Amino acid sequence: MTHTIASVHPLYLSAPAAVDLVRRKGLKHCIAAIADNIHADFLRWNDFDKSARVANHSRDGVIELMPISDDTAYSFKYVNGHPKNTALGLSTVMAFGVLADVATGAPTLVSELTLTTAMRTAATSALAAKTLARPDSRVMALIGNGAQSEFQAIAFQHLVGITTLRLYDIDPAATAKLVANLAGSGLKLEVCASTREAVLGADIVTTVTADKTCATVLSADMLAPGMHINAVGGDCPGKTELTADVLHAAKVFVEFAPQSRIEGDIQQMPADFEVTELWEVFAGQKAGRDNAAQITVFDSVGFALEDYAALRFMHAAALEAGLGERLALIPALADPKNLFGTLLQQQGSPSRQPEAVLA
Amino acid sequence: MTHTIASVHPLYLSAPAAVDLVRRKGLKHCIAAIADNIHADFLRWNDFDKSARVANHSRDGVIELMPISDDTAYSFKYVNGHPKNTALGLSTVMAFGVLADVATGAPTLVSELTLTTAMRTAATSALAAKTLARPDSRVMALIGNGAQSEFQAIAFQHLVGITTLRLYDIDPAATAKLVANLAGSGLKLEVCASTREAVLGADIVTTVTADKTCATVLSADMLAPGMHINAVGGDCPGKTELTADVLHAAKVFVEFAPQSRIEGDIQQMPADFEVTELWEVFAGQKAGRDNAAQITVFDSVGFALEDYAALRFMHAAALEAGLGERLALIPALADPKNLFGTLLQQQGSPSRQPEAVLA
Repeated sequence: MTHTIASVHPLYLSAPAAVDLVRRKGLKHCIAAIADNIHADFLRWNDFDKSARVANHSRDGVIELMPISDDTAYSFKYVNGHPKNTALGLSTVMAFGVLADVATGAPTLVSELTLTTAMRTAATSALAAKTLARPDSRVMALIGNGAQSEFQAIAFQHLVGITTLRLYDIDPAATAKLVANLAGSGLKLEVCASTREAVLGADIVTTVTADKTCATVLSADMLAPGMHINAVGGDCPGKTELTADVLHAAKVFVEFAPQSRIEGDIQQMPADFEVTELWEVFAGQKAGRDNAAQITVFDSVGFALEDYAALRFMHAAALEAGLGERLALIPALADPKNLFGTLLQQQGSPSRQPEAVLA
Repeated sequence: MTHTIASVHPLYLSAPAAVDLVRRKGLKHCIAAIADNIHADFLRWNDFDKSARVANHSRDGVIELMPISDDTAYSFKYVNGHPKNTALGLSTVMAFGVLADVATGAPTLVSELTLTTAMRTAATSALAAKTLARPDSRVMALIGNGAQSEFQAIAFQHLVGITTLRLYDIDPAATAKLVANLAGSGLKLEVCASTREAVLGADIVTTVTADKTCATVLSADMLAPGMHINAVGGDCPGKTELTADVLHAAKVFVEFAPQSRIEGDIQQMPADFEVTELWEVFAGQKAGRDNAAQITVFDSVGFALEDYAALRFMHAAALEAGLGERLALIPALADPKNLFGTLLQQQGSPSRQPEAVLA
């Protein structure tokens, strides 16, 4: 096999190109397709070289790298979490990611992952709920109505069958924004005055808040038998949403236990606190919900395999739609041992100018 | 402080733009400036949040992520190592990297790092040799004449005072390429028939080979008193260039011991094998070479701080030269809590089309 020069130039999918792609294909189609990829990849869990993400913490936030690979493809995501960013006009979470060819190490895709992360997180949440929530779940409390909330709403509507949302956010403007955005969705939207009120009568409770603190978003006295809790926002050390008594009262499911014990709501619990990895339920190796009265918790922190699955969907869809452009991030060398030669040659001309370079 | 929308769009420095920049400024100037940055950053070693890089190994190679940060800036490098790539017409090592703002997590630079890695590795090698080699060193054996070799040559010529190179590579075409590339450099170039011959009479021995094996490039019987060995190529588990008796015969210096013990030539040695970190010598906390007859080894594997220093040079130089373009990798949102809104709005038009998105 000979590689062409162009083969070292990855496809670049910008944020506007990703928006274009999702508008063309429809959001619910994209979330469903990403969910299918995640489910398929979780079923071959042991094919992947997995590690807890690498986090650099600072006073106001964290920057993380999330690599994963199987025998053929490698991916990583860069993602930050800075809750104070919204006050500066910036997003709390910004992300981009890369796919690469394991056989050669060449990057094949450089993509935005801010929009795509919102879709893959919602897809994962909905997949978990499809497996863990009571099948007759129709009402969901949505606590935290920020950047990711609408994606959760659409995913639960189309993949789980949710028809009614009970909404609460400490910022009423965030809730108003969600209501406006989802006016045409067909979902029944009920604005509530508190978390406690929103949770009343809910079959599923989704918490997707951004505070970088051990916030008590949900406590055990708000729970009802049979609830499924989708805890999305507690996703780094020192950042939790559930009190310990919620976790004690429930059967708890996670993505990748070594990472979740550091970052998830279960960081509050002893190291031997029992959790089930979601892939084990998908694969039929472990039980999900044991009975209709049990409270289940999906303590989601976001795992690299979900980004791998989402990036592969976006890559294939962009190629199919002819979206994106090539990025000259890697030098295209006629002779790979002659990197220095790129400095000597004018573009398009073989004439050497060693004086200029060596001067 | 309010951020403009453009502030989330990092500068993009492509491989051709980096070549342009180095041609404009001159290679030796760039290597010297990067060396200055590396030296300055090594002197404030304890300001950095450091970790061993994260490697995903596969049959034919490795893909690594190398993050580091201080209170203000974060960087990471993506880099592969696939020795068989040259047979496919691809580079053994391809890299790119990112700078980001620690306060917000926003990326500020996305840059090629294939060319830049060659410069920063050469700069680090030359900095180490300036400190560790005998000051009267003029002759360097250069074992391995591949993609990085000319950069090592130029760095040692201008920062260390090397005047003569004794060259050897198992591939004679690689040596011929180096000779042609450096014809105008002013260096005296002596082509040798073996490593043993090249090392004869050398003050400094630089090994920069690519085999992903425990290759015996240099053994103790080739050494002479007072030599400095710059071992660049042994840089991942299972990949070494020096025999254990070379390391036993020498005083050994490394970049970041926790990483070097996994990846460097010292991976062959017991966990308590004594090494000195280069920054300790720069800072005057530990001695370098103890006497003129001592053999010194710089067991270089490449550390994230060197890329941080190099990226900061390239960023500043590109901005000064007006090179590079902006990359829309992160969505520019009017309201950071309204990510979903980007799907509803036509570019340049506030009119909503929820049907298309929600369909």
